[in-house]
Amino acid sequence: MEETFVPFRGIKNDLRGRLMCYKQDWTSGFKAGFRILAPTTYIFFASAIPVISFGEQLERDTEGVLTAVQTLASTALCGIIHSIIGGQPLLILGVAEPTVIMYTFMFNFAKERADLGRNLFIAWSGWVCVWTALLLLMLSILGACSIINRFTRVAGELFGLLIAMLFMQQAIKGLVEEFRIPERENPKLVQFIPSWRFANGMFALVLSFGLLYTGLKSRKARSWRYGTGWLRSVIADYGVPLMVVVWTGVSYIPSGDVPKGIPRRLFSPNPWSPGAYENWTVIKDMLNVPIVYIIGAFIPATMIAVLYYFDHSVASQLAQQKEFNLRKPSSYHYDLLLLGFLTLLCGLIGIPPSNGVIPQSPMHTKSLATLKHQLLRNRLVATARTSMRKNASLGQMYGNMQEAYQQMQTPLIYQQSAAQGQQKHKYAGYTIGIITIGLKELKESTIQAASCTGNLNAPVDETLFDIEKEIDDLLPVEVKEQRLSNLLQAIMVGGCVAAMPFLKMIPTSVLWGYFAFMAIESLPGNQFWERILLLFTAPSRRYKVLEEYHATFVETVPFKTIAMFTIFQTIYLLICFGLTWVPIAGVMFPLMIMLLVPARQYILPKFFKGVHLQDLDAAEYEEAPALPFNLAAETQMGAGASYAGDAEILDEVITRSRGEFRHTNSSKITSSTSTPANDPLSMQSPRVRQSPRLSELRGERSPRIRGLPSPKTGESKLSNLGKSPLN
Amino acid sequence: MEETFVPFRGIKNDLRGRLMCYKQDWTSGFKAGFRILAPTTYIFFASAIPVISFGEQLERDTEGVLTAVQTLASTALCGIIHSIIGGQPLLILGVAEPTVIMYTFMFNFAKERADLGRNLFIAWSGWVCVWTALLLLMLSILGACSIINRFTRVAGELFGLLIAMLFMQQAIKGLVEEFRIPERENPKLVQFIPSWRFANGMFALVLSFGLLYTGLKSRKARSWRYGTGWLRSVIADYGVPLMVVVWTGVSYIPSGDVPKGIPRRLFSPNPWSPGAYENWTVIKDMLNVPIVYIIGAFIPATMIAVLYYFDHSVASQLAQQKEFNLRKPSSYHYDLLLLGFLTLLCGLIGIPPSNGVIPQSPMHTKSLATLKHQLLRNRLVATARTSMRKNASLGQMYGNMQEAYQQMQTPLIYQQSAAQGQQKHKYAGYTIGIITIGLKELKESTIQAASCTGNLNAPVDETLFDIEKEIDDLLPVEVKEQRLSNLLQAIMVGGCVAAMPFLKMIPTSVLWGYFAFMAIESLPGNQFWERILLLFTAPSRRYKVLEEYHATFVETVPFKTIAMFTIFQTIYLLICFGLTWVPIAGVMFPLMIMLLVPARQYILPKFFKGVHLQDLDAAEYEEAPALPFNLAAETQMGAGASYAGDAEILDEVITRSRGEFRHTNSSKITSSTSTPANDPLSMQSPRVRQSPRLSELRGERSPRIRGLPSPKTGESKLSNLGKSPLN
Repeated sequence: MEETFVPFRGIKNDLRGRLMCYKQDWTSGFKAGFRILAPTTYIFFASAIPVISFGEQLERDTEGVLTAVQTLASTALCGIIHSIIGGQPLLILGVAEPTVIMYTFMFNFAKERADLGRNLFIAWSGWVCVWTALLLLMLSILGACSIINRFTRVAGELFGLLIAMLFMQQAIKGLVEEFRIPERENPKLVQFIPSWRFANGMFALVLSFGLLYTGLKSRKARSWRYGTGWLRSVIADYGVPLMVVVWTGVSYIPSGDVPKGIPRRLFSPNPWSPGAYENWTVIKDMLNVPIVYIIGAFIPATMIAVLYYFDHSVASQLAQQKEFNLRKPSSYHYDLLLLGFLTLLCGLIGIPPSNGVIPQSPMHTKSLATLKHQLLRNRLVATARTSMRKNASLGQMYGNMQEAYQQMQTPLIYQQSAAQGQQKHKYAGYTIGIITIGLKELKESTIQAASCTGNLNAPVDETLFDIEKEIDDLLPVEVKEQRLSNLLQAIMVGGCVAAMPFLKMIPTSVLWGYFAFMAIESLPGNQFWERILLLFTAPSRRYKVLEEYHATFVETVPFKTIAMFTIFQTIYLLICFGLTWVPIAGVMFPLMIMLLVPARQYILPKFFKGVHLQDLDAAEYEEAPALPFNLAAETQMGAGASYAGDAEILDEVITRSRGEFRHTNSSKITSSTSTPANDPLSMQSPRVRQSPRLSELRGERSPRIRGLPSPKTGESKLSNLGKSPLN
Repeated sequence: MEETFVPFRGIKNDLRGRLMCYKQDWTSGFKAGFRILAPTTYIFFASAIPVISFGEQLERDTEGVLTAVQTLASTALCGIIHSIIGGQPLLILGVAEPTVIMYTFMFNFAKERADLGRNLFIAWSGWVCVWTALLLLMLSILGACSIINRFTRVAGELFGLLIAMLFMQQAIKGLVEEFRIPERENPKLVQFIPSWRFANGMFALVLSFGLLYTGLKSRKARSWRYGTGWLRSVIADYGVPLMVVVWTGVSYIPSGDVPKGIPRRLFSPNPWSPGAYENWTVIKDMLNVPIVYIIGAFIPATMIAVLYYFDHSVASQLAQQKEFNLRKPSSYHYDLLLLGFLTLLCGLIGIPPSNGVIPQSPMHTKSLATLKHQLLRNRLVATARTSMRKNASLGQMYGNMQEAYQQMQTPLIYQQSAAQGQQKHKYAGYTIGIITIGLKELKESTIQAASCTGNLNAPVDETLFDIEKEIDDLLPVEVKEQRLSNLLQAIMVGGCVAAMPFLKMIPTSVLWGYFAFMAIESLPGNQFWERILLLFTAPSRRYKVLEEYHATFVETVPFKTIAMFTIFQTIYLLICFGLTWVPIAGVMFPLMIMLLVPARQYILPKFFKGVHLQDLDAAEYEEAPALPFNLAAETQMGAGASYAGDAEILDEVITRSRGEFRHTNSSKITSSTSTPANDPLSMQSPRVRQSPRLSELRGERSPRIRGLPSPKTGESKLSNLGKSPLN
């Protein structure tokens, strides 16, 4: 993304890029079939549960003026619109905690004013939204998102960890509350006598830890040893929603003597109860707001605008991290523009606006990576099995697999800007490169196995190696980029408004467990978190880190430097966290995080070596470069891959595209440092890293231990490639 | 062990064998230093907690005549005597559940009789003990333990699993009870109103699951990645006792409104409260028992004698499994004789007798294996480090390590019976063989690393490989066989009587969690359990079983046969379990298990192939053969090992002792099938298994994945050894 401040240019670029793949965004989603429901349900729960909980909080704080019905409505409305006409469909919108805090502040302000009061609060907040929308539109048009490029890993990951801390804090607070009498309730009720309160608290502990433990376990179901593959798959995909249902069921087991209020459950008015419609017609009242307050609304509006600008962009950025190997372009400017309009809309119908949320947005991308992985895997396994059944030789089998892989690729041909166009050819070999390496590895291991039995040309024997496992290991991370899952989850959130009577069956303690679950789920893949863990790793056990998939810095940066950098970041995190406790100014903690951007650019280089900073915190941390799939290149590859009858074809593909391939390798090296296009250093870098596997991204430990990818072996691999006798 | 029924011969053999190593039993224990406290505390808790809980049960069932004071006293007294003058010091004695059930039955019988009644119950049970003792003495003298040889894995492991089920059942029952009003309590107390009962139950769930989860986690601390090695070691050694303390502490957190009875805690009279001394002078009353009841006491006595005969022998057998590579002889006959005297003693002072307990006895051996492993490892690591510091070459380092290992070995020279004497020379190389293979592996890997840097003769570079890890991997399982840990734990159990006021602070729910913990801890290493797991393993994931350490049958027996055998065994287990629910006859479930012995010998061979049965269920499942360490051989080896200045020395040791070595290998093959001495098949068996590592015994998954030890590679390794150019 170029850093341009020419009005409208950013928006135009974004629109052009996204329009190019708009049709494919839908077709690809529908092609996934019912499997799309797995990420959809997963994200639906991750999206709906906090929104409901924030709605409850809002209801307490605004004396019932705004409730979970309004937060759900806003999330659903904005989500549906964004998923259809928004830029980046991986981004999930929702009413977030900062919005709730701002609205609470505004309510307390309005309530005290005689000429505003409780009645005109929604109308006044409508004006705040109008101003906010104007500011956002201006920011978007003037290209403010261009500086997103300067938001490095250090800021984004710190924000991610802070959100995780806030979620965990909410979980703990919630659990502690379970032992106390709720504020707005009648303390005379039987369930609030000390014994029942204590019982309720203990029950809450059981339910929330039960949900947390089983939820975390179920996410790992795919690597379980027991049960059929189908069952494991279902549990991994739908385990968390299932567990919410199961533990809600458990909460109904105690009966008889136990009063109805135990355990405590969600409290929300039904949307059809009287008064629930009040806010929708707020536009009539907006002109009744005194002019001085209309103008005064500009002050909170600037705060919200800054907040949204940062929040929305970082959520989008985290959903498009380089590790995901996204193939479609980003859309920061256009999405901010749309957010402006959405804020305006929400203000005019009297509901709190939504913006891009963390950790749901990166969770969405991760779950879509899992989906894509499965689709790819199933296809390749089927192809391999068919080949085996036809008694194909190894070469034929790999040819078939290569072909199948091609067909699964998105044939995206959209025009790039001139600058990017130059890179096109280089990118073309990227994914192909990964898969061909993978297939080569697979081939080698099979040949080895085959040569043990002494029969190299015989048909491939399925008993010799586990094809599913091998393919699992070699597939690179790819994401099913489409709009369907986002649209569906937003619709389901909307459905929650109607399903309120059912939602009210969920115990609040299950909610707290779910908050803790979300906090923990957001940690793996966060390098900041992994560096913190590294600090606590016993020196004698650090080899274990090296044995697994690990970021470059572990090998290239001295431990002391890593420690210094991490401690600095941790202190900064704690300051930000402390700031959130400050009553009103607390909502401005994003400003504190934004301060990290100049600090990173001008202050940190004075304390750390440039090379180390490069590895610890990529200077060009931005969305993964879109990898335009060049049809010409594809055809060429495809032709090559339609096997010439022997295994050599794969070597040929590799050697023929060696130029790009080498580049591919180095682009992988630098996946945590810089884009291959802009960093001349990486082009010559001898370091080779294996492309991250999906399980590693999810933070699972790989069951296979790979040799340490030391610089030397990496280099020799590369040069062997060059000296291949087939060349 | 020969199958002899000549009176006294078994006892004489046992005594001779154990006397030979009696002094070493003590010196070796004291030499371990303070580290002996780790297995001691571990077993103390495993021994004391069930005994206290059974005492509580007995108190309820005998209307307070017998309490936890008596069960603790019996356990301590018998434990101390057995650890000092008993045969096998690995065996842990304690009052077990079947004893409690028998005593309850006897109490109910006596209570109803006018001329016996509550007052003469203890005197009458004294007579039962007298008869039981006589029967046990007779069984022992006549050599009944000789048929222990015929108790195969199938019976022992079934019994182990049954005990695990009973423990788990007790945990669940106990937790359910926490929600109810205890029988002997005043239901009017404030803590028994429904709300507090519910609160108590929920609190119990939190405490027991907390203990279970943290207890299981802490046992794995040694392989944690975080914290210093020292801390990890302490947590792994003392984690479970520590967790009992921690969760007891947690149980005191709720205060204020919460009544004193919540959570429920242990209930036991202090030993110094009036009436607690009644039973000790029971001998005076014994002659007051009507003669008809004295004779009638013979009937319960036979039942108890059969029970003890089986229980005691199987507990001893499970504590001496072949996998432990024990080096000292067994002592079934003599231990049964001693048990007879102990029963008599207990009867005369009016306390319930103790016998060998499961799972504590095998837990004891396992924890001593861990201790020995650490001692060996520390010594070898220190030696290697010293060598490195002195810039020794590889060869020198291995020489030093070899020497250090020798010194750690028990220099036991005791006379064997003629039959065993023939095997002596062959056994001599056994352990040496294991360690030399290990050292050779280590050497190869280092040489490989060294040759990468191109400098083979340079001093060993510590950065090249992690010496601790390598040594961990190569050390075979050995057990610190001594009497000190058993004696100390028994004394500590005795101390519990005095510490009753402190014990009473432990919540009962922590006890239930501990029961569940013990049940789970006893599972790994039980092949029956592992076969059950195998049945539930998805076919596509079975390769994972093969990748890890696994029993021979996984490779040699068809899956269908394994399944059939396991299903048969499971049904049998369920029948035995069902039997324990039958009111009085239930106590005879050991008879049902003993029935398995003839069934295994005469019926099973009709349904399963002999070869398969051999692998699934060793026909000569008995204690590990004692491995007399031949001093002559040792000196010879030692001389060889005092390095000739180069690495070749190790090859020399290996090739020189090739005869034994090959035998060593085959003895390892058959570790799960039969003793090398008696099974001609195994002598020629081409299958080579790696000696089990400690972590594998404990059921931990090895962090390193070894290639499948396929028959072929095993064979070729052996033949390579023969063709060594150095030969």
